[in-house]
Order: sequence, then C-alpha cells, then structure tokens
Amino acid sequence: MEVLKVSSQSNPKSVAGALAAVLREKGTAEVQAVGAGAVNQAIKAIAISRGFVAPNGIDLVAIPAFAEITIDGEERTAIKFIVEPR
Amino acid sequence: MEVLKVSSQSNPKSVAGALAAVLREKGTAEVQAVGAGAVNQAIKAIAISRGFVAPNGIDLVAIPAFAEITIDGEERTAIKFIVEPR
Repeated sequence: MEVLKVSSQSNPKSVAGALAAVLREKGTAEVQAVGAGAVNQAIKAIAISRGFVAPNGIDLVAIPAFAEITIDGEERTAIKFIVEPR
Repeated sequence: MEVLKVSSQSNPKSVAGALAAVLREKGTAEVQAVGAGAVNQAIKAIAISRGFVAPNGIDLVAIPAFAEITIDGEERTAIKFIVEPR
C-alpha cells in the first residue's frame, strides 16, 4: 500500500491532491502522521480529498490506528489512517 | 445525532468509552474537535473505540469534515467526525 507521510508543515490541499491521485490509481492509501500538528494536517487533507474524489462516485472513509515506527533510531508512536472507499 | 466534544485536555480512553457507549446505543456518533491538540485526542479516541466495539462485530470508520461553529460569539472552524459502522 502506498504510504503518504504527513508533517505539521504539510499543506493539506497538496496532500489531498496526492491522496486523491493514489486513491484513483490504487483504490486505497495509507496516511501516516507523528504528533498532533501532523495528525491535524492529515485529517484536513482527508476531508479535502473526500471532495476531490466524490465526483468519481467515491465515498471516502478513514480508519485510524496506532503504529510503532522508528525515526532516527527512536521508537515513536504514529497515527496511521487507512483511507479507502466505503 | 449525539455530539461528543473533545478538547486537547480530553483523555482519549475516556472519550473512547463514551463513544463506544453511544455507538452501541444509537449506531452512529459525531465527534467534534477544535484545534490540533483536540483533533489528535479525538483520533486517538476513535482508534481506541474501534477496539472497544470490535467484539460486538462493529468495524468502525470515521468520516472527517469541516464545520463552522460559534464559540463565545466567535466563528471557529472545527473538525467533525461522523463515526459509524462500515
């Protein structure tokens, strides 16, 4: 599955565009965020991308889950979102 | 629909418990958050509540959307999540 990594500096509209492209091509995508700022941008991106793919008849939903990832050798808890059509 | 308001100070596990209770009773719930900290806690709560209702055969999904709300007479943009079974 394609993983889109979102940071607190990410532009939600740009991420939404990338997300919509992945969804149209692969049907499903994973969005990963570490920290409150990043999670906030990820959610905005998913909300925006709903509007991008709605004209294609896709009703997007997000499934949030915790994920342990390693950044610079340190264990961090990320939030991952599986984003796919309902 | 029952609206659960989450703040950055909310305990995700407590919110998850309340959310699971509403979901078991009404089948669907709305979670509202204003600001990155609140959105982060809301997402953690939804991820945790997935585990609470999974034994009931419920596969929860979240649908994020923007919402204009008024707090102390000021217009704020909130994130609302419709949380319901897939």
